Amino acid sequence: MAERDAVLFANEAFYRAFVDRDVSAMETVWSARADIACLHPGWQPLIGRAVVMDSWAAILGNPQSPKIRVRDPQVQVHGDAAVVICYEQLGEDFLIATNLFAREGSVWKLVLHQAGATAGEPAPEGPPETPRRFN
Amino acid sequence: MAERDAVLFANEAFYRAFVDRDVSAMETVWSARADIACLHPGWQPLIGRAVVMDSWAAILGNPQSPKIRVRDPQVQVHGDAAVVICYEQLGEDFLIATNLFAREGSVWKLVLHQAGATAGEPAPEGPPETPRRFN
Repeated sequence: MAERDAVLFANEAFYRAFVDRDVSAMETVWSARADIACLHPGWQPLIGRAVVMDSWAAILGNPQSPKIRVRDPQVQVHGDAAVVICYEQLGEDFLIATNLFAREGSVWKLVLHQAGATAGEPAPEGPPETPRRFN
Repeated sequence: MAERDAVLFANEAFYRAFVDRDVSAMETVWSARADIACLHPGWQPLIGRAVVMDSWAAILGNPQSPKIRVRDPQVQVHGDAAVVICYEQLGEDFLIATNLFAREGSVWKLVLHQAGATAGEPAPEGPPETPRRFN
Protein backbone atom coordinates (compact mmCIF):
# COMPACT_ATOMS: atom_id res chain seq x y z
CA MET A 1 0.00 0.00 0.00
CA ALA A 2 1.43 3.39 -0.96
CA GLU A 3 2.40 5.63 1.94
CA ARG A 4 -0.33 8.20 1.37
CA ASP A 5 -2.94 5.50 1.03
CA ALA A 6 -1.82 4.05 4.36
CA VAL A 7 -2.23 7.46 5.99
CA LEU A 8 -5.67 7.91 4.43
CA PHE A 9 -6.59 4.44 5.67
CA ALA A 10 -5.67 5.46 9.23
CA ASN A 11 -7.69 8.66 8.82
CA GLU A 12 -10.69 6.68 7.61
CA ALA A 13 -10.34 4.36 10.60
CA PHE A 14 -10.54 7.38 12.91
CA TYR A 15 -13.81 8.60 11.39
CA ARG A 16 -15.17 5.05 11.17
CA ALA A 17 -14.63 4.65 14.92
CA PHE A 18 -16.40 8.01 15.40
CA VAL A 19 -19.41 7.05 13.24
CA ASP A 20 -19.65 3.59 14.79
CA ARG A 21 -19.36 5.03 18.34
CA ASP A 22 -16.70 2.36 18.84
CA VAL A 23 -14.59 3.31 21.85
CA SER A 24 -12.36 0.26 21.50
CA ALA A 25 -11.60 1.08 17.85
CA MET A 26 -10.95 4.70 18.84
CA GLU A 27 -8.43 3.53 21.43
CA THR A 28 -6.67 1.53 18.72
CA VAL A 29 -6.59 4.44 16.25
CA TRP A 30 -4.70 6.69 18.71
CA SER A 31 -1.08 6.07 19.61
CA ALA A 32 -0.56 4.36 22.96
CA ARG A 33 3.18 5.10 22.79
CA ALA A 34 3.61 8.72 21.73
CA ASP A 35 2.51 12.00 23.28
CA ILE A 36 -1.00 12.77 22.07
CA ALA A 37 -3.32 15.77 22.12
CA CYS A 38 -6.88 16.49 21.05
CA LEU A 39 -8.31 19.95 20.43
CA HIS A 40 -12.07 19.55 20.10
CA PRO A 41 -13.65 22.80 18.85
CA GLY A 42 -14.56 25.01 21.80
CA TRP A 43 -13.23 22.59 24.44
CA GLN A 44 -10.23 23.00 26.65
CA PRO A 45 -7.16 21.48 25.01
CA LEU A 46 -6.73 17.84 26.02
CA ILE A 47 -3.15 16.65 26.34
CA GLY A 48 -2.24 13.09 27.26
CA ARG A 49 -3.86 9.75 26.54
CA ALA A 50 -6.03 9.56 29.67
CA VAL A 51 -7.92 12.82 29.11
CA VAL A 52 -8.12 12.32 25.35
CA MET A 53 -9.64 8.87 25.74
CA ASP A 54 -12.03 10.09 28.44
CA SER A 55 -13.26 12.72 25.96
CA TRP A 56 -13.93 10.10 23.30
CA ALA A 57 -15.74 7.84 25.75
CA ALA A 58 -18.01 10.82 26.58
CA ILE A 59 -18.55 11.83 22.93
CA LEU A 60 -19.11 8.32 21.62
CA GLY A 61 -21.32 7.40 24.56
CA ASN A 62 -23.63 10.33 23.87
CA PRO A 63 -26.52 9.30 21.58
CA GLN A 64 -26.92 12.99 20.61
CA SER A 65 -23.38 13.16 19.22
CA PRO A 66 -23.48 14.24 15.59
CA LYS A 67 -23.09 12.04 12.57
CA ILE A 68 -19.83 12.93 10.91
CA ARG A 69 -18.45 12.43 7.41
CA VAL A 70 -14.92 13.08 6.19
CA ARG A 71 -14.64 15.07 2.94
CA ASP A 72 -11.71 15.99 0.68
CA PRO A 73 -8.84 14.59 2.77
CA GLN A 74 -5.39 15.81 1.73
CA VAL A 75 -2.18 14.15 2.93
CA GLN A 76 1.19 15.78 3.61
CA VAL A 77 4.00 13.44 4.69
CA HIS A 78 6.91 14.71 6.82
CA GLY A 79 9.21 11.75 7.44
CA ASP A 80 7.70 9.54 10.11
CA ALA A 81 4.80 11.92 10.63
CA ALA A 82 1.94 12.71 8.27
CA VAL A 83 -0.87 15.23 8.34
CA VAL A 84 -4.34 14.79 6.93
CA ILE A 85 -6.25 18.02 6.40
CA CYS A 86 -9.93 17.33 5.77
CA TYR A 87 -13.40 18.71 6.10
CA GLU A 88 -15.74 17.17 8.65
CA GLN A 89 -19.36 17.31 7.52
CA LEU A 90 -21.94 17.50 10.31
CA GLY A 91 -25.36 17.79 8.72
CA GLU A 92 -25.18 20.90 6.54
CA ASP A 93 -22.18 22.33 8.41
CA PHE A 94 -18.48 21.88 7.91
CA LEU A 95 -15.46 21.99 10.17
CA ILE A 96 -11.85 21.87 9.03
CA ALA A 97 -9.64 19.32 10.76
CA THR A 98 -5.97 18.54 11.12
CA ASN A 99 -5.14 14.93 11.97
CA LEU A 100 -1.49 14.17 12.65
CA PHE A 101 -0.29 10.59 12.45
CA ALA A 102 3.05 9.10 13.53
CA ARG A 103 4.51 6.00 11.93
CA GLU A 104 4.78 3.10 14.38
CA GLY A 105 6.29 0.12 12.57
CA SER A 106 4.04 -0.59 9.61
CA VAL A 107 1.04 1.44 10.78
CA TRP A 108 0.16 5.10 11.28
CA LYS A 109 -1.20 6.11 14.67
CA LEU A 110 -3.13 9.29 15.44
CA VAL A 111 -1.22 11.63 17.74
CA LEU A 112 -3.09 14.93 17.34
CA HIS A 113 -6.55 16.04 16.24
CA GLN A 114 -7.77 19.60 15.94
CA ALA A 115 -11.07 20.65 14.39
CA GLY A 116 -12.36 24.18 14.03
CA ALA A 117 -14.49 26.64 12.13
CA THR A 118 -13.89 27.23 8.44
CA ALA A 119 -15.28 29.42 5.68
CA GLY A 120 -14.41 26.73 3.17
CA GLU A 121 -16.51 23.91 1.81
CA PRO A 122 -15.49 20.67 0.16
CA ALA A 123 -15.81 20.19 -3.56
CA PRO A 124 -19.31 19.15 -4.63
CA GLU A 125 -19.79 15.42 -4.71
CA GLY A 126 -20.23 13.85 -8.12
CA PRO A 127 -22.91 11.33 -8.94
CA PRO A 128 -22.42 7.93 -7.34
CA GLU A 129 -20.14 5.67 -9.34
CA THR A 130 -21.80 3.06 -11.44
CA PRO A 131 -21.34 -0.22 -9.60
CA ARG A 132 -18.72 -2.35 -11.28
CA ARG A 133 -19.84 -5.76 -12.47
CA PHE A 134 -17.49 -8.65 -12.14
CA ASN A 135 -19.15 -11.12 -14.45
CA MET B 1 20.36 23.26 22.27
CA ALA B 2 18.01 20.52 23.41
CA GLU B 3 15.52 19.31 20.79
CA ARG B 4 12.45 20.73 22.51
CA ASP B 5 14.15 24.07 23.03
CA ALA B 6 14.96 24.21 19.32
CA VAL B 7 11.30 23.57 18.48
CA LEU B 8 10.18 26.26 20.95
CA PHE B 9 12.71 28.62 19.39
CA ALA B 10 11.15 28.04 15.95
CA ASN B 11 7.69 28.59 17.45
CA GLU B 12 8.84 31.87 19.02
CA ALA B 13 10.28 32.96 15.67
CA PHE B 14 6.87 32.40 14.08
CA TYR B 15 5.09 34.64 16.58
CA ARG B 16 7.92 37.17 16.52
CA ALA B 17 7.48 37.51 12.74
CA PHE B 18 3.74 37.94 13.35
CA VAL B 19 4.20 40.65 16.00
CA ASP B 20 6.86 42.45 13.98
CA ARG B 21 4.71 42.28 10.78
CA ASP B 22 7.86 40.96 9.13
CA VAL B 23 6.91 39.21 5.90
CA SER B 24 10.49 38.27 5.11
CA ALA B 25 10.96 36.62 8.51
CA MET B 26 7.61 34.84 8.07
CA GLU B 27 8.83 33.46 4.73
CA THR B 28 11.92 32.10 6.50
CA VAL B 29 9.94 30.51 9.33
CA TRP B 30 7.87 28.40 6.93
CA SER B 31 9.38 25.49 5.01
CA ALA B 32 10.24 26.25 1.39
CA ARG B 33 10.81 22.56 0.70
CA ALA B 34 7.94 20.60 2.27
CA ASP B 35 4.20 20.64 1.66
CA ILE B 36 2.67 23.33 3.88
CA ALA B 37 -0.82 24.31 4.97
CA CYS B 38 -2.34 27.10 7.05
CA LEU B 39 -5.79 26.99 8.62
CA HIS B 40 -6.57 30.49 9.84
CA PRO B 41 -9.73 30.49 12.00
CA GLY B 42 -12.80 31.01 9.84
CA TRP B 43 -10.85 31.19 6.57
CA GLN B 44 -10.82 28.71 3.76
CA PRO B 45 -8.02 26.19 4.25
CA LEU B 46 -4.83 27.34 2.53
CA ILE B 47 -2.66 24.58 1.08
CA GLY B 48 0.63 25.25 -0.67
CA ARG B 49 3.32 27.86 -0.18
CA ALA B 50 1.98 30.47 -2.62
CA VAL B 51 -1.45 30.86 -1.01
CA VAL B 52 -0.08 30.55 2.53
CA MET B 53 2.45 33.32 1.93
CA ASP B 54 -0.16 35.51 0.21
CA SER B 55 -2.28 35.21 3.35
CA TRP B 56 0.57 36.32 5.59
CA ALA B 57 1.38 39.25 3.33
CA ALA B 58 -2.26 40.35 3.66
CA ILE B 59 -2.40 39.81 7.44
CA LEU B 60 0.94 41.40 8.21
CA GLY B 61 0.28 44.28 5.83
CA ASN B 62 -2.94 45.18 7.64
CA PRO B 63 -2.34 47.76 10.37
CA GLN B 64 -5.57 46.55 12.05
CA SER B 65 -4.20 43.01 12.47
CA PRO B 66 -4.27 42.05 16.12
CA LYS B 67 -1.35 41.99 18.50
CA ILE B 68 -0.67 38.39 19.38
CA ARG B 69 1.14 36.70 22.25
CA VAL B 70 2.02 33.04 22.61
CA ARG B 71 1.17 31.47 25.99
CA ASP B 72 1.84 28.03 27.52
CA PRO B 73 3.51 26.34 24.54
CA GLN B 74 3.80 22.55 24.85
CA VAL B 75 6.02 20.47 22.58
CA GLN B 76 5.47 16.92 21.34
CA VAL B 77 8.21 15.43 19.16
CA HIS B 78 7.45 12.69 16.62
CA GLY B 79 10.72 11.81 14.90
CA ASP B 80 11.54 14.49 12.36
CA ALA B 81 8.30 16.34 13.06
CA ALA B 82 7.28 18.22 16.18
CA VAL B 83 4.06 19.84 17.31
CA VAL B 84 3.70 22.90 19.47
CA ILE B 85 0.28 23.33 21.05
CA CYS B 86 -0.12 26.82 22.47
CA TYR B 87 -2.57 29.52 23.32
CA GLU B 88 -2.62 32.68 21.23
CA GLN B 89 -3.62 35.72 23.26
CA LEU B 90 -5.36 38.50 21.33
CA GLY B 91 -6.29 41.22 23.79
CA GLU B 92 -8.50 39.48 26.37
CA ASP B 93 -9.31 36.56 24.08
CA PHE B 94 -7.57 33.26 23.50
CA LEU B 95 -7.31 30.90 20.59
CA ILE B 96 -5.72 27.46 20.70
CA ALA B 97 -3.14 26.71 18.01
CA THR B 98 -1.32 23.74 16.59
CA ASN B 99 2.01 24.49 14.92
CA LEU B 100 3.69 21.57 13.18
CA PHE B 101 7.40 21.79 12.42
CA ALA B 102 9.54 19.50 10.25
CA ARG B 103 13.25 19.05 10.83
CA GLU B 104 15.34 20.34 7.92
CA GLY B 105 18.99 19.75 8.72
CA SER B 106 19.69 21.54 11.97
CA VAL B 107 16.57 23.71 12.00
CA TRP B 108 12.83 23.22 12.42
CA LYS B 109 10.59 24.70 9.74
CA LEU B 110 6.88 25.40 10.08
CA VAL B 111 4.76 23.17 7.84
CA LEU B 112 1.27 23.58 9.31
CA HIS B 113 -0.57 26.13 11.45
CA GLN B 114 -4.13 25.83 12.67
CA ALA B 115 -5.75 28.16 15.19
CA GLY B 116 -9.28 27.94 16.52
CA ALA B 117 -11.72 28.61 19.31
CA THR B 118 -11.10 27.18 22.75
CA ALA B 119 -12.83 27.13 26.12
CA GLY B 120 -9.43 26.89 27.78
CA GLU B 121 -7.20 29.62 29.12
CA PRO B 122 -3.49 29.63 29.85
CA ALA B 123 -2.20 29.44 33.39
CA PRO B 124 -2.09 32.81 35.12
CA GLU B 125 1.17 34.61 34.65
CA GLY B 126 3.34 34.98 37.71
CA PRO B 127 5.05 38.18 38.77
CA PRO B 128 7.88 39.25 36.50
CA GLU B 129 11.16 37.60 37.36
CA THR B 130 13.54 39.67 39.39
CA PRO B 131 16.21 40.85 36.97
CA ARG B 132 19.44 38.99 37.54
CA ARG B 133 22.43 41.10 38.45
CA PHE B 134 25.77 40.15 37.05
CA ASN B 135 27.98 42.27 39.28
